[in-house]
Amino acid sequence: MPSSNIQLDDMGRLRHFLGIEGLSQAILTEILDTAESFTSVADRTIKKVPILRGITVANLFFEASTRTRSTFELAEQRLSADILSLNLSTSATVKGESLLDTLQNLEAMQIDMFVIRHQDSGSAHFFAQHVRPGVAVLNAGDGQHEHPTQAMLDMYTIRHYKQDFDALRVAIVGDILHSRVARSQIHALNLLNTGEIRVIAPRTLMPVEAESLGVKVYEDLELGLRDVDVVIMLRLQKERMQGALLPSEKEYFRKFGLSQERLRLAKPDAIVMHPGPANRGVEIESGVMDGKQSVILQQVSFGISVRMAVMSMIASQSGLQSGGES
Amino acid sequence: MPSSNIQLDDMGRLRHFLGIEGLSQAILTEILDTAESFTSVADRTIKKVPILRGITVANLFFEASTRTRSTFELAEQRLSADILSLNLSTSATVKGESLLDTLQNLEAMQIDMFVIRHQDSGSAHFFAQHVRPGVAVLNAGDGQHEHPTQAMLDMYTIRHYKQDFDALRVAIVGDILHSRVARSQIHALNLLNTGEIRVIAPRTLMPVEAESLGVKVYEDLELGLRDVDVVIMLRLQKERMQGALLPSEKEYFRKFGLSQERLRLAKPDAIVMHPGPANRGVEIESGVMDGKQSVILQQVSFGISVRMAVMSMIASQSGLQSGGES
Amino acid sequence: MPSSNIQLDDMGRLRHFLGIEGLSQAILTEILDTAESFTSVADRTIKKVPILRGITVANLFFEASTRTRSTFELAEQRLSADILSLNLSTSATVKGESLLDTLQNLEAMQIDMFVIRHQDSGSAHFFAQHVRPGVAVLNAGDGQHEHPTQAMLDMYTIRHYKQDFDALRVAIVGDILHSRVARSQIHALNLLNTGEIRVIAPRTLMPVEAESLGVKVYEDLELGLRDVDVVIMLRLQKERMQGALLPSEKEYFRKFGLSQERLRLAKPDAIVMHPGPANRGVEIESGVMDGKQSVILQQVSFGISVRMAVMSMIASQSGLQSGGES
Repeated sequence: MPSSNIQLDDMGRLRHFLGIEGLSQAILTEILDTAESFTSVADRTIKKVPILRGITVANLFFEASTRTRSTFELAEQRLSADILSLNLSTSATVKGESLLDTLQNLEAMQIDMFVIRHQDSGSAHFFAQHVRPGVAVLNAGDGQHEHPTQAMLDMYTIRHYKQDFDALRVAIVGDILHSRVARSQIHALNLLNTGEIRVIAPRTLMPVEAESLGVKVYEDLELGLRDVDVVIMLRLQKERMQGALLPSEKEYFRKFGLSQERLRLAKPDAIVMHPGPANRGVEIESGVMDGKQSVILQQVSFGISVRMAVMSMIASQSGLQSGGES
Repeated sequence: MPSSNIQLDDMGRLRHFLGIEGLSQAILTEILDTAESFTSVADRTIKKVPILRGITVANLFFEASTRTRSTFELAEQRLSADILSLNLSTSATVKGESLLDTLQNLEAMQIDMFVIRHQDSGSAHFFAQHVRPGVAVLNAGDGQHEHPTQAMLDMYTIRHYKQDFDALRVAIVGDILHSRVARSQIHALNLLNTGEIRVIAPRTLMPVEAESLGVKVYEDLELGLRDVDVVIMLRLQKERMQGALLPSEKEYFRKFGLSQERLRLAKPDAIVMHPGPANRGVEIESGVMDGKQSVILQQVSFGISVRMAVMSMIASQSGLQSGGES
Repeated sequence: MPSSNIQLDDMGRLRHFLGIEGLSQAILTEILDTAESFTSVADRTIKKVPILRGITVANLFFEASTRTRSTFELAEQRLSADILSLNLSTSATVKGESLLDTLQNLEAMQIDMFVIRHQDSGSAHFFAQHVRPGVAVLNAGDGQHEHPTQAMLDMYTIRHYKQDFDALRVAIVGDILHSRVARSQIHALNLLNTGEIRVIAPRTLMPVEAESLGVKVYEDLELGLRDVDVVIMLRLQKERMQGALLPSEKEYFRKFGLSQERLRLAKPDAIVMHPGPANRGVEIESGVMDGKQSVILQQVSFGISVRMAVMSMIASQSGLQSGGES
């Protein structure tokens, strides 16, 4: 998978973090293990380490985000980085600069690490192709392509509650077609040798080549949920859909919403996940979201450790010098 | 007053800071004394103490604010906190999450302290009821309910210039009905045994149960100002008023605006206060605002020390561990 | 030039940084030398020095900015300042405060240094006239008046590549009439005894008194470019122009755009500069912007060191005490 090799250096170490595709099981496991080392016994992130001291991280959010952006900022603070956060969804394009111009100007400011969310698929790769050696790019979501730190915090959550992936049945439910989260999850679950990966969606929201991704395809939620260990619900990305792919929210819930009743089809100890923000009553019943099997808020917590892990692995690869004070 | 007891722990120490109602004179005095310890001889806030090192404070502003938000951020910086500032007035509701979902997601990010401003009365209490033990909530203004740090910086200002509250006559002038600032001030002045508290407002902006708050009610500004030691002008909250409660700004100033001439009715050494931002020429004449008796800018300065005081008292109560570096 | 003397203290040291007009060659050279001391051999800014520790800097941007604002913030971080960044273009005027009220309220928050960008010419001077002794004001661009840190990073760039100013021919091309950048550059180039300063613009974008600024005036780009050492292109400030000063962008490029072909009229080793953001294909051809002679991105890098230099010179003048921790 040559398009992703840019993520690794000659020794196979992480240089950028653009997508799960093209990475190895070893790298994914290293991320999970490193994240674990940032989590204390009380499931709380260790508060402050000097790993990124003297390193400047720029958060470039061309799309609105509260959860991902906040957990990246907190991870950076806990790694002692200098932080430049730009809400580019409004300000940047005011003066009509191209993405490459924006990148080059920020790079000239001696940014060491870019975290980028952008509405165009491939934008993070584009950044990585154009930065100079030693500067790292992390993908915080690019169009309908990948959202790899989200997938890794999901893997962390699954491993935390379920240990070995080999024996697990994992179902991903919802708008598979438009979801960068689902794409990254499927790659990660495959790399970690998950026993069985199921995707469940109405035909209009299912990619045509779905089976080729190494998953079992279901158009019936109740069939698909049977005996699974993990249920991952996707946000119904209303803003992403074009044309009339869906009849109505109510109808969607009736056919693809996760209710308490339907959840009983899964294993009794199945966990329920969601990348958030959830549409209560659309893809998931409130009672399920707040229920005993839900680990949705734990996912958010783990997100900080996982993002700390990825950034610290990249920093150690690139030999970024902690500047300290002169 | 059970609705406010949530603010205190079993030993009566401050756990949250939601409103003045339900607090004791002892707590208020402790806040004022602690704030004084953060102010150096030159009336400048002491610049940096490590009291909140390793503690993460999230500033959640669902309403626009420059003054309150900035002084909270500066107070947090001077206490060495890690800070996450979210302007939720625009970004948060984009994806349609409920307030409780927003809270729980942020809490999952291991925020130790929330500072919240929200347009709904009771929102800070709502937050405090739902956070887990050890997490603190500070009310930076909730609807028409309370704005307790504003009231405490006002009390600090009065004590700074006038010492004992017992002998003082304090007048609050303006839109009492809609003002969270006035509500908090009245509670605080009562708790501190202020000699006489007057509220002065047109009938349409006066709460019906005003006397029951322990105040003297005046509908005539000139009568109300006579011989007072402290004049607190309120901002005419145009955006809060619904319907035709007022004839015009000009007419309002003619009847309830504080002019130099009217100020002479108060004691010669009376001080003039305003929570800001003031509408010059509406509730207060420019000459009064910039005059010798005005302590309006001093209020802003004291606001930093008072906010530092409240946060440090809560931090010592909750046994928040300064994380340091591992 | 009495209007600018406010920038200097009795001993001629920098107290504010409002404009190049009224400064001396000695001060400009000190800024350039100080900036050089913040740049390491690899042309990278030294990452962190404690010069502004305990000092609070407020960035007040009443106009949108990515480049200037980001480099100011990075410079402040690298000097270890406490930073309060306010995007006032939207939030501040919501409640209708005057500029003086905004200033006084922020000053009451014990801000030590203000960085201000504002659409009104003279706004930075206005601030400097009203702050109390010991508080410094830096102009980050005021209307069509000056943008002095931009001019100083431009001088730094020229000196870096060309050493002595005496022997140089420098051409500034574009919307001279509306450009605060051009005004500041012309003052700086004159103070540094530049051999020859040319301004090149269509008549409608040329100030009437242009020659009186100590420059040679050209209305023909090809004549003006002949044998110059430095070409400074200005952004076509579309938003600043009122009425029909220009026929069309295409026509503008045809007559005043910098193409590869035209650049050959300059000396073979001439450098090309632009304050950014550039309009590719309007005032400058893409090939020139990305070409060997372009030092546009280096300008951005040098901007951090230059801003660090100005802030550290002011801090040492004013005897600002680094507060440290008590």
